[in-house]
Parts: sequence; structure tokens; C-alpha cells
Amino acid sequence: MTSTHMIDLESAAEMAPAQDALTVGVDTLAMIAENALTVNNVWMMVATALVFIMHLGFAGVEAGFTQSKNTVNILFKNTLTPVIGILSYAFIGFGLMYPGFDEPGWFGYSGIGLMFPEGGNSVDYAEGGYTYWTDFLFQAMFAATAATIVSGAVAERIKLNAYLIFTLLFVGVVYPIIGSWKWGGGVLDDWGFYDFAGSTLVHSVGGWGALAGIMILGPRIGKYVDGKVIDKPGSSVPLATIGVFLLWLGWFGFNGGSVLSANPGEVSLVLVNTSLGASGGAIGGFIMAYFLFKRMDLGMVLNGILAGLVGVTAGTDVIIPTEAVVIGLIAGFLVVLSAHFLDKLRLDDCVGAVSVHLTCGIWGTLAVGIFSAEHSFITQLAGVAIIGVAAFTSASLIFLAMKKTIGIRVSEQHEMDGLDSHEHGIRGYTIILE
Amino acid sequence: MTSTHMIDLESAAEMAPAQDALTVGVDTLAMIAENALTVNNVWMMVATALVFIMHLGFAGVEAGFTQSKNTVNILFKNTLTPVIGILSYAFIGFGLMYPGFDEPGWFGYSGIGLMFPEGGNSVDYAEGGYTYWTDFLFQAMFAATAATIVSGAVAERIKLNAYLIFTLLFVGVVYPIIGSWKWGGGVLDDWGFYDFAGSTLVHSVGGWGALAGIMILGPRIGKYVDGKVIDKPGSSVPLATIGVFLLWLGWFGFNGGSVLSANPGEVSLVLVNTSLGASGGAIGGFIMAYFLFKRMDLGMVLNGILAGLVGVTAGTDVIIPTEAVVIGLIAGFLVVLSAHFLDKLRLDDCVGAVSVHLTCGIWGTLAVGIFSAEHSFITQLAGVAIIGVAAFTSASLIFLAMKKTIGIRVSEQHEMDGLDSHEHGIRGYTIILE
Amino acid sequence: MTSTHMIDLESAAEMAPAQDALTVGVDTLAMIAENALTVNNVWMMVATALVFIMHLGFAGVEAGFTQSKNTVNILFKNTLTPVIGILSYAFIGFGLMYPGFDEPGWFGYSGIGLMFPEGGNSVDYAEGGYTYWTDFLFQAMFAATAATIVSGAVAERIKLNAYLIFTLLFVGVVYPIIGSWKWGGGVLDDWGFYDFAGSTLVHSVGGWGALAGIMILGPRIGKYVDGKVIDKPGSSVPLATIGVFLLWLGWFGFNGGSVLSANPGEVSLVLVNTSLGASGGAIGGFIMAYFLFKRMDLGMVLNGILAGLVGVTAGTDVIIPTEAVVIGLIAGFLVVLSAHFLDKLRLDDCVGAVSVHLTCGIWGTLAVGIFSAEHSFITQLAGVAIIGVAAFTSASLIFLAMKKTIGIRVSEQHEMDGLDSHEHGIRGYTIILE
Repeated sequence: MTSTHMIDLESAAEMAPAQDALTVGVDTLAMIAENALTVNNVWMMVATALVFIMHLGFAGVEAGFTQSKNTVNILFKNTLTPVIGILSYAFIGFGLMYPGFDEPGWFGYSGIGLMFPEGGNSVDYAEGGYTYWTDFLFQAMFAATAATIVSGAVAERIKLNAYLIFTLLFVGVVYPIIGSWKWGGGVLDDWGFYDFAGSTLVHSVGGWGALAGIMILGPRIGKYVDGKVIDKPGSSVPLATIGVFLLWLGWFGFNGGSVLSANPGEVSLVLVNTSLGASGGAIGGFIMAYFLFKRMDLGMVLNGILAGLVGVTAGTDVIIPTEAVVIGLIAGFLVVLSAHFLDKLRLDDCVGAVSVHLTCGIWGTLAVGIFSAEHSFITQLAGVAIIGVAAFTSASLIFLAMKKTIGIRVSEQHEMDGLDSHEHGIRGYTIILE
Repeated sequence: MTSTHMIDLESAAEMAPAQDALTVGVDTLAMIAENALTVNNVWMMVATALVFIMHLGFAGVEAGFTQSKNTVNILFKNTLTPVIGILSYAFIGFGLMYPGFDEPGWFGYSGIGLMFPEGGNSVDYAEGGYTYWTDFLFQAMFAATAATIVSGAVAERIKLNAYLIFTLLFVGVVYPIIGSWKWGGGVLDDWGFYDFAGSTLVHSVGGWGALAGIMILGPRIGKYVDGKVIDKPGSSVPLATIGVFLLWLGWFGFNGGSVLSANPGEVSLVLVNTSLGASGGAIGGFIMAYFLFKRMDLGMVLNGILAGLVGVTAGTDVIIPTEAVVIGLIAGFLVVLSAHFLDKLRLDDCVGAVSVHLTCGIWGTLAVGIFSAEHSFITQLAGVAIIGVAAFTSASLIFLAMKKTIGIRVSEQHEMDGLDSHEHGIRGYTIILE
Repeated sequence: MTSTHMIDLESAAEMAPAQDALTVGVDTLAMIAENALTVNNVWMMVATALVFIMHLGFAGVEAGFTQSKNTVNILFKNTLTPVIGILSYAFIGFGLMYPGFDEPGWFGYSGIGLMFPEGGNSVDYAEGGYTYWTDFLFQAMFAATAATIVSGAVAERIKLNAYLIFTLLFVGVVYPIIGSWKWGGGVLDDWGFYDFAGSTLVHSVGGWGALAGIMILGPRIGKYVDGKVIDKPGSSVPLATIGVFLLWLGWFGFNGGSVLSANPGEVSLVLVNTSLGASGGAIGGFIMAYFLFKRMDLGMVLNGILAGLVGVTAGTDVIIPTEAVVIGLIAGFLVVLSAHFLDKLRLDDCVGAVSVHLTCGIWGTLAVGIFSAEHSFITQLAGVAIIGVAAFTSASLIFLAMKKTIGIRVSEQHEMDGLDSHEHGIRGYTIILE
């Protein structure tokens, strides 16, 4: 812990009276700019930490909602997901996502690894909103969430090595190339497609990956029997609840950090809309599940919260609070209907990831075109479709290629026994009370 | 993620030398003020996120300390509590709590919904401490904690719909009206009543609601048998411990955000006193429980931490660190004695919420009158009494009205079987290890 | 919640034009300095909160990785550790660690208790990086982690009172005296020994304490039988995983706060290196465990993350990102090898604390001498050795003195039955589902 400080304030104060007024003014402005960068950067680092904690949130939701015989397996995947995400984004993804297009394009690459640019830690970088290092880490944490979305859907039967390879390719290559079309200044950005914090670029991309995965893997053994959907109780509802609360918390950074500065009015509106969207989603999930299933369905309240959060993500900064409630409420309705519909199609999503992230990601992106006069519904729809085709095709190709080669699904015996005993050699819970 | 920045620094720097010195000075001051608002607002947003996470803390404590057959039910309540809290505060509560009294009053209403005032995101709002949106969200997260306090006490036998209606009325109406008397600039504020962050306005208000609830509901079946108190073991001590740590963490925002700016000296003193109060409370709970029960009682250490936190909340900003330790220590003693005493009265509080929030909320508020020379013990006592009568009466009326109509207690069979199987259709834990 | 603000901005703006330009300049600089202090202090408070949450992280790791019959006991210790840490640091440790040496020394004491210095909350304190109160709380949270490291290693057989006394002495006396040699401006600092955030001063000091503890206590009954290592399954892998994620999160404050200001470039580089170190460690632990044990070992991935974090702690601010990955990777290899080696020596460390904190703490400190041209390998080695001798000897003396007097190990019966039933009277988990 060395002592550091940015501005030699005392000597500046002493020198000041000896300078002429105009010079004082210019020096002063530099110090003010440095302060602005510092506070912006503090907020962005806090946002980064909050997005990081979403990975624990996903781990909680997924381990809580899946069977206890697969707990270690799901935790293994969720622990390695941010690890692989950060490393692959550092060495490949960051350069693919921000290629520095000369003109709006579909593909570019600014180079391997973290190539610190001149002035990367000064007010000249990113309009004083954050440093190059913060930029990377915030984006890397973001990137890894796209893969995490997939892990819950395909749980309880995917081979671990297949999942890890998928994650590497999805976070390192697919996600950043698609991301470059909008956030990297590519073609979709040029068309006016709007996706503030990633209802489409993160959530539906992950959701398409999840959909491809469950289609190609097939349902778990015993999930659909004689036309009935058989419930597979998750190991721990408290763990899933912890996960959802942490995801809500993390979304303050996910959406709040997407302002890319600490601009007080913008960030605080975003946090309000985020919370109101989550609240609307909870109510929507609660009502629709009660209507359909006649029970107080905690799983659907929790997924309703996530649905509302995904729903408001695309337009958090361009909607007003009542609109956030409405968008969240509709997302809460949709997530229940979508989960119901997927089961009809015998598409087995262990934690409802496709319904939360894909269905509500699409809804949220289209909602921008509905609620914000400045954005075109058609352009939003076009963006959703183009990105959908790209993400679904890419994910399908990866899964199919692995299916032909290393295989993507564990053996029947293995699946019945649970993944923990075979691959990991320990059990998730060992509660022995004499 | 659009790029934004508050001050066009480069152009400002370029322009500066061309302006005359005095003009530079004025422009400069505006930029400095903007920076001050930005940093204050960042802290307040962090504090808001921390108060939000207290809801997960409460969920952990309550689910951990109640029986496993009711885990889903308690989580359902704790998940919907912030949801209902935020929505009802947005549409009703905020307008009741900050009515803009012309002269100190008992009731006022500034209107339904979030009515963004002119300059709500500028330095003109709240003396540059935060924006209107941050103000709302911080206050909304606060409000919802008052209802959460009730949920733990009345657990394991209250009807879910009764609890949800209570929460709506308590957070939407009762809490904000009482809050307006002090924080809204009402009569108690005029009298000099002091409650920095809510030992009384939040904690004892919630505690009175809890007391009313457990009195009207009656104890759980089999809690008091032949003059003996029968232990009902909680499902998960780790979960309760997670809850208490998160509450301590959240209290950094609860107390630290109550400074209403990032004022370095004030906020950091508040955090120190908060931590020392919690530490004193842990020691107090430890000692008193060892003295009374001759065991190392983790439950009482955990409740001692919460007791210490509640105890220092009223005066965190006007006491010195050693006083924080003493106030916390006494709160730790009191919480054990209070829990013991309530059991003597056959008042069945599942998690000790009345002892933590009411008993220690009163103690903390009176302690301000004892330790701070600037505040009158009599005024503190008067405030505690008036608010106590108002909160207890209101809560009792709500519970009694529901008792006469929809009923507030589940059936005997239902209570014996556990609430999860009847209302929710899933179990909290499903740990099957072949 | 009283309204406060630091700078009377409106009146300042009004007054400005009436002043002459030079005076404006000087006043302006004071306001800019105040803003700089405020933002620096906000970051340091956030860092403090993050280090606090590491205590929950340790609680999760240790309770998750130890047997369910001892869960309450480990949580009791982990709950009281920050409590005792904060109180003892307030009354003794802070004065020992920052004695204000006139010339570099080995021992000094600036007095009992929190003695607020003149200007402790102003820009004159700590070069505007934070206030006196923040300084104390950040350091106190740090100090308590050194003791927490010990608690996991010695779990499942140490007497509770012996552990609490050890913690009091270790945090209150041993840790701060050793810390004063470097961070307090003592002799090692003068020699040029470098330890940015405490690979040695915190982690290996805690690790030496843990090593002394397990050597003097001996292994758990039934751990080493007929030359075999008998696995003792931990109660909850999800709990351990929560713990590791929270530790990674907390490390953003541990390392990021060690910059001692919010300097944008420095802090953000530190966060990047911290995350890359953790990621490298996860991969290292994964690979080495797969190589040695032929399984996907989640425990070693989790410990690999912690190993990587400890490894980059000493030099986070002086290395580049690729070096962080390499240091973390090697730490991940080392933690597996070290755990394996300790078992060969029949040194029973319940959670791998010695391997994580001591082995990788030494590695990280030496790595500074390898990767940073500005620091001498020999000086790093000397610092590691001197501190190692001091920490190990002190801890051994405390444990041995207690062994001769009050005893440090529970009875055989007690150990077999589990510590919870004897000392605490409750069980960690009570999951009853009719």
C-alpha cells in the first residue's frame, strides 16, 4: 500500500496566486477534469464489481433450481465461466468487439491481447468516463454473462468439456463479433438500432445459445413422460433466491454502468427504472402463474424479477418509470407463458433461461420501438432478427460440430446417477447429523 | 450503452484563455458543483444498493431461523416485500412522506406517483447531495425494510394474502405518514426529536407492527407447552449467518446513506460507529446468552450484531466511537433479555424481530438523549411514545380488520404440515443423494 | 437523516464575480481539493465494505468445506473474528501498526484507542486520499482477515475459547507489530521490501499462524489412517462456492483499496490484475488437480482462485496483465501441490488455508522480485523470511502457552460427536421434510 494522490493540491494552492489569472483557469480546468474522470471511474469500477457478482447470482439460481445430484457440476461450470470469459475476452474478444471500424462494418479486429493505448488512463480516453482498464474489465464481466445464460438451460446432461469449449468460443468469438455491430460502432449502430445495456446483445444472444443447446441436446431423461411434464425439484430454493437477489443487485451495475459515466441524472434514472422493471416483472410472474397454475409460485416470481430486468435493459435510459413498470409486468407475463410453451414443445430448459433471456430480451428490445418515439420499431425488429439468426446459427454450429466429434451429452447411466459422482468425485451437500 | 459525459472538458479548456478571468471563475464553479453532485450521488447510489441488499439479508435471517417446512413461504414473502414496497412507495408513499409541509404538520400529501420536479437532477435539488431519482430509490428501499421486520416475527402461521395486504398498507401508508413527522419536516422534527437513520422511524415502527402481529396471531402450535418454551430449530444456520453479514454490510448504506451526501468526515465516522456498534452488540449478546443459558449461543451473537446496529442507528452521527461500543454492548444485553421476556409472556416471535428492532430501536433513540448533549432525553422519549402509539395502533387495526374478514391465520392442519406444501407446491430443500 | 453538503455552492457562485481573479483561484483550488478527497474517500469506503464482505466469504468457504456436525462452531468463530478484530484493532492494533516512527524501527506505539488527529477528516490527512475514520476502518477490516485465515485450518478440533484468545492476541498485537515494519514505515520499508496489499503482511502472516496451529493441534481423528488420507466431506459445496465468489469480490477492495486513493489508472489496473490473477489461478488449480487426481476437482478450482488472488496481491500495482495471469497460474499449480505435500506430512488443514495463504503468499511476494525490475529478489526473500520467523514463532508461543494452561483441543468424544452439539446446543442444518 503505497500512498498516492493525483493532484499535488498543496503546492498547487501555493503556486496559484503567483500565476496570472488565465493560467490559473486552465490548470484548474485540468484538475476539475481529473476529478470528473476519477468519480466517473469509481462508479464504473463499482458497476464492474456488481456485474461480477451476477456470476454468483447465476450460480445460485442454477444450482438452486437443479437437482442435488448435479450441484457440483453446475457450480463447476458457473465458476469457470467468468474465468474463461475474462481470459478469452482479454486475449481475443475485446479486440473483436471494439475493432475501431473506419466505417460501419460487420467484422473487424484491433489485435490480440490488452494493448494499452496512449492516454488510456487519462481524460482523453472515453470522454473522461473511465480508464482503458476499467473499460476492459467492465466489458469482460459483461461478456461472460452471455455464456452463463446458456449453462443453466443445458444443465444436468451436457458434457463438461463440451460446455467449456462452447463457452470459450461463444464469449471469445461469437458474442464480441455480434456486439461489434452495435457497441463497436458497426452496421446496426449505423442503422439506429438501439440496445442500451443488452436485452438483445447480451441476453437474447445468450438465450439463442441456450435454445440451440437444448434443441440439440434433447430433454433430460424422464422429463416428458406420456405427454406429461415431470417436475425435477431443485436442490435449494434459498440458494435460488439468493441468486435472484444478487442478480437484481448486479443489474444496478449492468444497466447503471452502461451509462458509461457517473452522470447523476442518467444513472439514477436507470437504477429507478431497473428496480421498477424488476418489481413489475415479479407481479407479472406472480399473477400469470397464479392464473395458470393456481398456486403461489415462487419460481415464477423469481423468474418474473429476472424477466422484468431483462425487459427494461434495452431501453432503461429512454423510458419513464411508469413505462418501466409496464414493460416489466408484461415481461413477467411472458416469462410464464414462454416456459409453459417450451414445455409443450418438449424443449427442456432446466432453469427457464430461454424464457427469461431470449423471450424477454426480444420483448425488451421491441419495447424500445414501442415506448420511445425516437426509435423505430422496424429497426428494432430488424436488429433482433439479424442478431437472432447470427447467434442461433453460430451456437448451433458449435454444438453440432462437437456432437459429431467429442459428443455433447453424458451417458444415460451417468445422467441417472448424477454428474457429480462421475466427474467430480464429491457431492454437493453432505449433511450428516448423528 | 451510449457514451455520455457531463462536462465538455476539452472545449472548456480551449475556450478558457479567451474568456476574462472572472467569467472563468463562475463557469469553473459550476463544473466544480457538478463534480460534487456527481460524487455525492455515486455514494448515495451505492448506499441505495446496500440497503437493497438488506432485503436479501432479512430473507436469509428469516429463512435460516424458521423451520424447513416453511422455507418457501418465508422466501416468497421476503421476495415480494421489496417489490410491493418499491411500487407502493412510488405511487403513494413518497408523496406522503415528503409532503412539503408549509408549516410543521401531521399529515400532507404531495401527490401520486413520481412527479419529477424541475431541476431534480441538478445541483439545485437536495443541496447537491443527490438527484430526485436517487432520493426516491434510496427512500423506497428504506421504506420496504419496515415491512420486512414484521415478516420474520409472524412467520410460520400467517396467511400469505394477509401478509401481502399488510405490507401494502404499512409501507404505502403507515410508514410514510409517520416518517413525515420527522424526515418530512413535520411536528416531531420541529420539536427537536432526533433520529438520524431510523432507530425509531424504521426499526421500532417495524417492531411495533411485528408486536401487534404476534399478539393478534397468537403463538405457533406447540411453542409453549406446560409452561415450557419448545425450540423450533431453524432450517439453516449458515443461511441465517449470511443474512446477518449482509445486514451489517447493508447498514453501511442504511446509516452511511442517511448523511445524504458523501461528506467524507461525516460518512466515514458513521461507518466506524456502525461497525463498532455491531461489534459491541455481538459481545453483549454473547455474554448475556452465556450468562443466562450457559452456552455459546450463535443465534444471540447474530441477533446481538443486529441489536447493536439498530441501537446506534438513531445517533450514529452525533456519538463518538467509544459511545458506539457502549450503546451496542447494551443493545446486545437487551436483545437477549427481551427475547427471554417475550417468551415469558408467550409472545412468539420466530426470529427475535421485536427484540432486535423494537426493544433496541427504543434504546437507541433514547441513547441519543443520554449521550448527546444537544438532544433532550424527554423529547426523545416523547417521540418514541407518540410514534409507538401510532405504529402499534395502525398495525393492530390492519391485522384486526383482516382477522374479522379474510382471516389472518392458516388452518391448524396447514400449520402442522408446513406452509410450503399447501400454498406453494414445492419444498425449500430437496437434497437427494442416492 | 440531516441534510448536509460540503460546499456552499450557490453562495460561492454568487460571490465569485465580486472577488478578484487570484482570490477566486485559491478558493477554487480548495473546493477542487475537497472534491478530490470526497471521491477518494468514497472509493476507500467502498473498498472497506468489500473487505468486510470477505469475512462472509471466509465463513462460507470454511463452513462449506468442513463437516456438518461442526457448522455452527465454525460460523461462531467466523462471526466473532471481525468483531474481535475491529474492537482489538480500535483499542490496541491501530496504534501499534502506525506508530509514527521517527526513524525506521521495529516497534512503536502511538497510543491506545482511536485518537482523532487534528485535520483527520480534511485534505491534510493522508494526502487527501481518505479520512482518519476511513483509514481506521479499512485497516481494521484488513487486520481481521489475518486471523480468519487461521480459523479454517484449525477447525473441527480447536477449543473455542482458545481460538478467541488467539484471535485477540494475533489481530491486536502480532499482526500490527509485523505490519508496522512495512506499512507503518519501519525497517523493512526502509530496506525496500515491497508488499503492495499484503501477500506477506496479511496472507502469509495468517498462513504461518495456521501452520503453527495445525502442527501443535495435530490432525483430526481419523484423517490419516494406515498411511491413507481419509476424505472428510464438507457440508455444502454451494456455500463454499458462495464464499469464494465473495472473496474474489472482496479482493477488489482488498487490492483496489490498497492504492489508498481512487487514482483512476492505478486502481483500475489493480482490479484487472486481480481478476486475471484469480482466473489464472483457477486454470492452474484445474489443470494440476486433473493431472494429479484425474478428476474435475471443484475444490481445487476454488482454491486455485484464492491462490491466484493471494499470488498477485503483493505486486498487483507493479505488474502487467499477462504477468498477473502467469503469477496466478503458477499459484494455482502451487496450491494443489502444497495441499498434497502437507497431507504427506500429516499436517491436517481442513480447508487448505496454509496452501492458499502461506504457500501462495510467499510465491506472490517473491514474484515481485522476479517480475518487477524495480524490486530486489533478495530483499523480498529477506522480508518473507524475517516476517515468517516472527509470525510463526509468535503464533506458536501463543498456542503452546494455551496448550499448557487452558488446553487447545476438545476431547476425543467431543470431536467425534461434533462441536455443535456440545458447545452450541444447536445444529447447523435442520431439514425436516415430512
